[in-house]
Amino acid sequence: MIFPSKLIEDAVGAFAQFPGIGKKTALRLVMHLLQNDTETTKNFAETLLKMRQNIKHCNNCHNVSDNDICSICNNDFRDHHTICVVENFRDILAIEQTQQYNGVYHVLEGLISPLDGIGPEQLKIETLENRIKNQEITEIIMALNPTIDGDTTIFYLSKKFKDYPIKITTISRGIAFGGELEYVDEITLARSIHARLPYENYLGK
Amino acid sequence: MIFPSKLIEDAVGAFAQFPGIGKKTALRLVMHLLQNDTETTKNFAETLLKMRQNIKHCNNCHNVSDNDICSICNNDFRDHHTICVVENFRDILAIEQTQQYNGVYHVLEGLISPLDGIGPEQLKIETLENRIKNQEITEIIMALNPTIDGDTTIFYLSKKFKDYPIKITTISRGIAFGGELEYVDEITLARSIHARLPYENYLGK
Repeated sequence: MIFPSKLIEDAVGAFAQFPGIGKKTALRLVMHLLQNDTETTKNFAETLLKMRQNIKHCNNCHNVSDNDICSICNNDFRDHHTICVVENFRDILAIEQTQQYNGVYHVLEGLISPLDGIGPEQLKIETLENRIKNQEITEIIMALNPTIDGDTTIFYLSKKFKDYPIKITTISRGIAFGGELEYVDEITLARSIHARLPYENYLGK
Repeated sequence: MIFPSKLIEDAVGAFAQFPGIGKKTALRLVMHLLQNDTETTKNFAETLLKMRQNIKHCNNCHNVSDNDICSICNNDFRDHHTICVVENFRDILAIEQTQQYNGVYHVLEGLISPLDGIGPEQLKIETLENRIKNQEITEIIMALNPTIDGDTTIFYLSKKFKDYPIKITTISRGIAFGGELEYVDEITLARSIHARLPYENYLGK
């Protein structure tokens, strides 16, 4: 693309560094800034910078947070004996969205991935073990992505924590609501037959 | 969406103000900033702010520019007697991309639109008339979108400039390359039959 202005070319390049944003979309976003006054761009830039500079990670569960302890760990109405283990804070958002979980979380900040050279020591596993030791945890729910890396991490953690007096569970896998049997891959279908439920439990009661 | 942090909620909101960016995409973009160091966000914010604060509009053609006169108007190798009239600078980008046009441009900064209350006096028509008077212009090419507003603007301009010794042309309309006849709307098809070309001109020679 030939740009009439170095300033615009740089701005388009800045947007295009984001995943999923190409040059054409980036140009559309820059156009939006140009169509509004300088104040709009200033506010936008300041909001992002303020967020990045002031964001913290919860000292207890590593969730993103405005304070040293996140709003979930700080909430007395939640069940602090059940920990849901997730890969990153987006998973927390997704689970919170369901409004079906009342325990607390632990963010691993990644998954064990031998192919990418990520071992257990790079994840927040030590702090998880400390919590199990010190916080009277009764259950750990593994809510990790159903991938090789996710399964590897679940396997590692369940072995590591097998001597603690806690229940280790994983979120169930199976056919998604609205899915069609004929399009489901065979691993998922096999698992969902294997992990079949009594009908009374079908609706999660 | 329930956010664990006011800072993140604000940042997501800042991205979501852009056209075509929803909350989910915005969250993905914020995640990208969180996954990189503070410096990345700082550079991003500074690039946008620098662009918005320093961008100028060419005094001659109203194209966006780093200087008082844009790089196209400043280029001695271009034909300064032919003006291509466009709605905004994105259209200039699109035409420059073709590398088929060697004249100069004039950005109207909009189209006449009675429905949106935009009249000729809100567009850069006076400066266009001054250029026609003072810059020995021989041809004006109307490269406006083929919409009601575009056609209204072309009609208005061609009437306004009819007494000047210039040729007024419009870019041709018809079936796009790769298009299929059966899916083309009737107005376009009718126009392209009406404006049929001798075969010798078919490839733009």
